[in-house]
Amino acid sequence: MDITFNTDPKLNILLPLLYHAWQDSELSTQEYKAIADFINKQDWLTKAEKDFLQSKIDAGVPPTRSELFHWREKIDTALQANPKTASFTDLGILIANAERTAVKDEDIAKIAPAVALLEQQLGIIGVDALSAYRKKESITAQHNTEHTFDPAAMTALLDADHSDIINKVKSIISRKDFTPVVDSDINAFREKVLGWCKVLANEGLGSYAYPVAYGGSGDMEAYFAIMETLSYQDLSLVIKFGVQFGLWGMSVMFLGTEKHHKKYLPAIGALELPGCFAMTETHHGSNVKDIRTTATYNHATRSFTIHTPEKYDRKEYIGNAAVHGEAATVFAKLIIDGKDYGVNAFIVTIRNKEKQTLPGVTIEDCGHKMGLNGVDNGIITFDNVEIPYENMLDKFAGVNENGEFESPIPSDNRRFFTMLGTLVGGRIGIPRSALAAGKVGLATAIKYGDKRKQFGPESGQEVPILNYRMHQRRLMPYLANAYALTFALQYLTKRFINRSEADMQEIEALAAGLKSYTTWNVRNTLQECREACGGKGYLSENRIDDLKNDTEIYTTFEGDNTVLMQLTAKNRLGEFRKQFGEMSVSTIFNYVVEQAKTGITEKNPFATRNTDEAHLKDPAFHLQAFKYRERELVNSAAKRFKKLTDDGLEPFDAANIMHPHMLQISDSYLDRVILEQFQTKLETVTDQSLKEALTGLYQLFALNKLEEHKAWYLEQGYMEGVKTKAIRKLVSQLCWEIRQDAVPLVDAFNIPENCLGAIAADKIAEA
Amino acid sequence: MDITFNTDPKLNILLPLLYHAWQDSELSTQEYKAIADFINKQDWLTKAEKDFLQSKIDAGVPPTRSELFHWREKIDTALQANPKTASFTDLGILIANAERTAVKDEDIAKIAPAVALLEQQLGIIGVDALSAYRKKESITAQHNTEHTFDPAAMTALLDADHSDIINKVKSIISRKDFTPVVDSDINAFREKVLGWCKVLANEGLGSYAYPVAYGGSGDMEAYFAIMETLSYQDLSLVIKFGVQFGLWGMSVMFLGTEKHHKKYLPAIGALELPGCFAMTETHHGSNVKDIRTTATYNHATRSFTIHTPEKYDRKEYIGNAAVHGEAATVFAKLIIDGKDYGVNAFIVTIRNKEKQTLPGVTIEDCGHKMGLNGVDNGIITFDNVEIPYENMLDKFAGVNENGEFESPIPSDNRRFFTMLGTLVGGRIGIPRSALAAGKVGLATAIKYGDKRKQFGPESGQEVPILNYRMHQRRLMPYLANAYALTFALQYLTKRFINRSEADMQEIEALAAGLKSYTTWNVRNTLQECREACGGKGYLSENRIDDLKNDTEIYTTFEGDNTVLMQLTAKNRLGEFRKQFGEMSVSTIFNYVVEQAKTGITEKNPFATRNTDEAHLKDPAFHLQAFKYRERELVNSAAKRFKKLTDDGLEPFDAANIMHPHMLQISDSYLDRVILEQFQTKLETVTDQSLKEALTGLYQLFALNKLEEHKAWYLEQGYMEGVKTKAIRKLVSQLCWEIRQDAVPLVDAFNIPENCLGAIAADKIAEA
Repeated sequence: MDITFNTDPKLNILLPLLYHAWQDSELSTQEYKAIADFINKQDWLTKAEKDFLQSKIDAGVPPTRSELFHWREKIDTALQANPKTASFTDLGILIANAERTAVKDEDIAKIAPAVALLEQQLGIIGVDALSAYRKKESITAQHNTEHTFDPAAMTALLDADHSDIINKVKSIISRKDFTPVVDSDINAFREKVLGWCKVLANEGLGSYAYPVAYGGSGDMEAYFAIMETLSYQDLSLVIKFGVQFGLWGMSVMFLGTEKHHKKYLPAIGALELPGCFAMTETHHGSNVKDIRTTATYNHATRSFTIHTPEKYDRKEYIGNAAVHGEAATVFAKLIIDGKDYGVNAFIVTIRNKEKQTLPGVTIEDCGHKMGLNGVDNGIITFDNVEIPYENMLDKFAGVNENGEFESPIPSDNRRFFTMLGTLVGGRIGIPRSALAAGKVGLATAIKYGDKRKQFGPESGQEVPILNYRMHQRRLMPYLANAYALTFALQYLTKRFINRSEADMQEIEALAAGLKSYTTWNVRNTLQECREACGGKGYLSENRIDDLKNDTEIYTTFEGDNTVLMQLTAKNRLGEFRKQFGEMSVSTIFNYVVEQAKTGITEKNPFATRNTDEAHLKDPAFHLQAFKYRERELVNSAAKRFKKLTDDGLEPFDAANIMHPHMLQISDSYLDRVILEQFQTKLETVTDQSLKEALTGLYQLFALNKLEEHKAWYLEQGYMEGVKTKAIRKLVSQLCWEIRQDAVPLVDAFNIPENCLGAIAADKIAEA
Repeated sequence: MDITFNTDPKLNILLPLLYHAWQDSELSTQEYKAIADFINKQDWLTKAEKDFLQSKIDAGVPPTRSELFHWREKIDTALQANPKTASFTDLGILIANAERTAVKDEDIAKIAPAVALLEQQLGIIGVDALSAYRKKESITAQHNTEHTFDPAAMTALLDADHSDIINKVKSIISRKDFTPVVDSDINAFREKVLGWCKVLANEGLGSYAYPVAYGGSGDMEAYFAIMETLSYQDLSLVIKFGVQFGLWGMSVMFLGTEKHHKKYLPAIGALELPGCFAMTETHHGSNVKDIRTTATYNHATRSFTIHTPEKYDRKEYIGNAAVHGEAATVFAKLIIDGKDYGVNAFIVTIRNKEKQTLPGVTIEDCGHKMGLNGVDNGIITFDNVEIPYENMLDKFAGVNENGEFESPIPSDNRRFFTMLGTLVGGRIGIPRSALAAGKVGLATAIKYGDKRKQFGPESGQEVPILNYRMHQRRLMPYLANAYALTFALQYLTKRFINRSEADMQEIEALAAGLKSYTTWNVRNTLQECREACGGKGYLSENRIDDLKNDTEIYTTFEGDNTVLMQLTAKNRLGEFRKQFGEMSVSTIFNYVVEQAKTGITEKNPFATRNTDEAHLKDPAFHLQAFKYRERELVNSAAKRFKKLTDDGLEPFDAANIMHPHMLQISDSYLDRVILEQFQTKLETVTDQSLKEALTGLYQLFALNKLEEHKAWYLEQGYMEGVKTKAIRKLVSQLCWEIRQDAVPLVDAFNIPENCLGAIAADKIAEA
């Protein structure tokens, strides 16, 4: 009788190993050798048995598919009956014993240890390899969405005191004719956006921030909530809206005086007078102070001549200019009698009501852009355009009856920054808009990840991709950031609204910084969201492309992020120096002692190695660590700059070397402000279920930032490796936990259904 | 006589301080107080003089603009005559002495120390503050492009042995009718791209990789050079080209047999038979093994029935499907007699020559996408479509005359991976294409940064933005990566071309890894390039938008990057286990000793703190550090996995926890391979000027990676803070140095002029 596994049951002890060796690939040389050697050495095998087994590892005559199939059936049956089997050898024994003829115990006693050794030689780690054959319950597979809090309550918390206006805007953009546009012709798209703007103006939303006397509602804070909420729908609309009612209208409001307000604000708010904000020139963007357009005062006629001296001094990227704008606030150097009085602002009419360009004004279309193609950006060149005396926006400077320059602010520099300071609102509106766009991306990616299944435990169901740790690590920190920044930007808005003169510099620094911080964060958020949605994220119907391409320029306009971060850092360094300047000797002594204390309380071996979970989750620890980074970066920058210049470097060169350091200063300052605002917000939350969900997000925000900067903390000796590793682990754990809240957390953004892409809308539950 | 600065010269000693206090802002309370106190305390001042000075710090009556202007003139005159003046006090003395009436020496002796003290109290750091008034030479301002090597020689080095075909492709895409398209209507764009493809096919480029016998040139390596070079022009073209000649043609070439080659390859290569590669389904993308389309064998007719069982089992994102494709390689589960024989490939005709969809085939258009809108992606659903027996691509599996499944590879798993393995070429073509797109971005941003000026030293010219350290840190490392990856991808290509069966698994892992590594790197590169070009980077005419949006999907298609990185890591772990498996006890002992040596040679206090520049630039140090990371990550992963499963976790759950760790394994492996290839390449360079430029790039690549991973090295104790800080400094220094080579280094890419945006083309030198 031929030898087979059926006729010679004990041989089955080897069957799982043989199956495993063949299963994934040809037998490797090493496997072949180990098995062949093993067979040859076994004295409990007859020659015939050895030949049979050798034939089963012959690369020339591999087992047939049906033979392998049969082996697999035996394995499956045995494993299902004995799920706790821990090795291939044990499994083999089970299979052998299941044959009609039982195997003798003494045979098993002889064979088992030898096979176990072979198993080891083959380098098979039992549990791991065997798991592939096992049907089982996996934690990963069961980790799904839970509903521990009421999303509507969370929405109320996020909307804070602006629910009414937010809901009004949402009800408008939910209308069918506000459905976002995909791949429209550029001209049609521009008209569509203008039409949307008109609807908003008619609803009184355009003039919301203007004084009641001029047709507005006198509510600047609500204006920001409007811009933010509109951002769920279409960002071309937001920018068109912001150009018309924010940049154009508010330049008149803040730089002009009563006569301007009376004459222009009602028409601007009603969108009867579409206008532009013409500051940037081709050759001067970030460096606005050096723009070259001139406004020359004519004594005889008491008028100004607006002129573009050379080609690249033209105004570029100007929103509303290519097609719709009829007027513009033009920034130009005021020249009186050949003398340059610095940058000032003038209202210039550029088109008549028939939309014909006026004489002396040349306008080119910026053409197709990466995004925001619903906004008609243009290039304006002025050829000696005369404007009347009243058109100078004269809040901060003017020309008196004698044709002399007059200003309540004598320094050109200071006047310039005061003027710009009034326009800081743009740096609040933009990050708030960006953040809303990021939230649409997060809602899309998280809802998709919750439904989309791919891969799973062997012989189990596929699992939602949001259950994968890597996927969680990619999205959850941005979800935490979105919440953190919501509170931080609300705080910034309130500070701006309630600003005092003394506050102004810090508010400007904070706005410049948060604008950069937020828009970069949203850039990264939407990038992850796009990738997290795979091919679906690439289809325009799911909107991530437009959100991404539209917000792409947010890192550049209203001030290039890198430049703004330098400004913020300069303010921080300035504050630091002022502090020092104001310090008496004893204060300085106290400061040094305070600094030294850090060494004792925060940098002792216990603290730097403390991996206790309660400690790592303690808000006091977070704040201390964030403040330490902020303080040290400023401190070392001051020292470093002094050393570089002491070493003979020109200050401009020294400052250049320090640019990356300066960026870190701003970053650490912003991190700390955002952390504090999140902590402050948490203290006000009374609903326990909301508080728990928010606390997780807060902890993730804090620890994720610490992890991001762990190299710095390690370099400083503020933390040791054990602690940074513990933080990494805790971040993973928090991501895992927050995953269960993730869908309700994005539901709480309460984004209108028509603004979500197909894969995020609830109707595609089955996708 | 009234007291003035002119009539009372000694008062001028205070003038610079007063000017400085007023210049930027109102006097701060602190400044006011310090100056007022100072004035009151000076016994060398008369009451009238005190009153005069007090009047100059009165916030109620600030100095007029012309008064400030006059002060400034005095300061400028004095400073220009005495550029080395070190303090405001010294400057004041100079101004005082320049008055018509000289100041008495004893007055100066009295006044100077007091003013110097005031200067200190005001917290003015002399050199810093004074520098604002000084005209000077700045290193930053003078750091411009130099020409130390011949870009054409560098081009030859980069093109290596494929100059001829590369130049041929460049000459075609330089033609006027190949000028990239901006904002075209989607239908027009698709036809345009098809037309371009036809030109390429007519030039014999489509069939380049096919055997000579079937109309090709039999040169697969050149095929990759073609795809790469085409990527300078338009990525829709590249993908259309890749779908037709690569995916469709090569699936026939690699999965089919002679009868298929003969019948299809000539028509495919000539673009007479446009076709698709239909693998991905809506519900199964990354997890291809579980696709659900079926190919059921019909015994009676010896045919197959291709069928889409449920809605989301349809083929999605299929290139060439929406409009042009007439046939497709369809991946489906082969079913014989109700039994599932795994994924196999079949040729299915989907349209007739009149482009009408055939019965049973339903095709939808994927519609507008974020990018690549010149490619007509579609969704294909099959309703029991019968295809003839010969249409099974039967290289690896077939159905014999008895209607039985037959395959030279018994294991389903292994057959599946062998099939996919032949398609690994896509994972070489894609990163090479991405890299070329990244190079267009780099050429654009670097040439723009070299010309674009903004800001500058006070009273100096504005400087090119590429002279700013921050700008360099953003772009130079990506320039280094672009060179490094050029060599690494050439190496991968050659290994693929010259592959042996035994090599195949590693080549697949390397291709999967490099595809991810490169496409992520290019994603980041183009992001920085966009921002580095500011508003210009947002205009479609400068092409960064299309490059960015087109390559955006490169991180997803041909395998989602995150999933591919897991595959690569699994291969590395497998290799590690195999190594262990093959080790005898003595080898293991040696391994352990070897590991321990690391502790002695690399982790001793001298090494971990060694900041010597020669050491930091030493290729041996780099390789050692890269290998250490690679080895430790694999090592710890193996241990960690064992621990997690020993602790009772299901392997699927344990693997899930380890996903981020796995990504690091792949990353470290790829870093090391790329580093080695750069080192190897450098050894072959004989031209000294090229070698120097490349050495700088090499060092930047190596040190930038070490800096990127410094947190890990610090955690491991492989480096201490002093060393990581020294590396950071050296990276900055290398960026600064390479900036001078940057323009020639991108010129060496030799990108056709019409493929560069307006701001990068040489003609806009004046912009």
